Amino acid sequence: MAESVSIKIRFHNNDIVAIGPGKADLLDAIITHGSITAAGRSMGMSYKRSWDLVNAMNTNFKKPLVTTSRGGTHGGGARVTAFGQSILEHYRHIESKAKASIEKDVAAITDLINS
Amino acid sequence: MAESVSIKIRFHNNDIVAIGPGKADLLDAIITHGSITAAGRSMGMSYKRSWDLVNAMNTNFKKPLVTTSRGGTHGGGARVTAFGQSILEHYRHIESKAKASIEKDVAAITDLINS
Repeated sequence: MAESVSIKIRFHNNDIVAIGPGKADLLDAIITHGSITAAGRSMGMSYKRSWDLVNAMNTNFKKPLVTTSRGGTHGGGARVTAFGQSILEHYRHIESKAKASIEKDVAAITDLINS
Repeated sequence: MAESVSIKIRFHNNDIVAIGPGKADLLDAIITHGSITAAGRSMGMSYKRSWDLVNAMNTNFKKPLVTTSRGGTHGGGARVTAFGQSILEHYRHIESKAKASIEKDVAAITDLINS
């Protein structure tokens, strides 16, 4: 079907997005790849951008969501902390709830879109 | 409070946004101002951009959401059709429902953001 609906939820700290769709996907990718650089690459992001997103999360929450292990910022592995996993789970739960809440109503608009 | 949450809902027709936050706000502004150019200006949009958004809505839905009156595309007034008002109402209803559905859950994340 050509018609679709998307919901993007963003948590802001003043003007900064503390967590949103891109950062949540990056956390998932860090869990999968065990490295910030590899995670970013899997999403088509530059090295710099993936690190900027991790730094934004780590500095805007009360505790770090991602820690890096020995080997330094370039070579070492990265891990999503228990705190980060909890944030990610809450975020996915909130996303699902919002999607489910509008499920029955979207057809009122999608049925009127050309296809 | 520095922490906040935003929800952006977009209805897509393939790669094109048929209606989303910007287009819905533009419809509201057209109702207020009675002109596409004045509506766009009130939102800090160029003449071209506001017309592009209206054309995207009008061509991606089954009927026009906005019609322009005599005086031509430049000088004349514009009106949100009954069809457009219905789409806008459904869109605002869906937005409200999504926001209400997550209200009790957002604190699980906002409480953990630095302030």
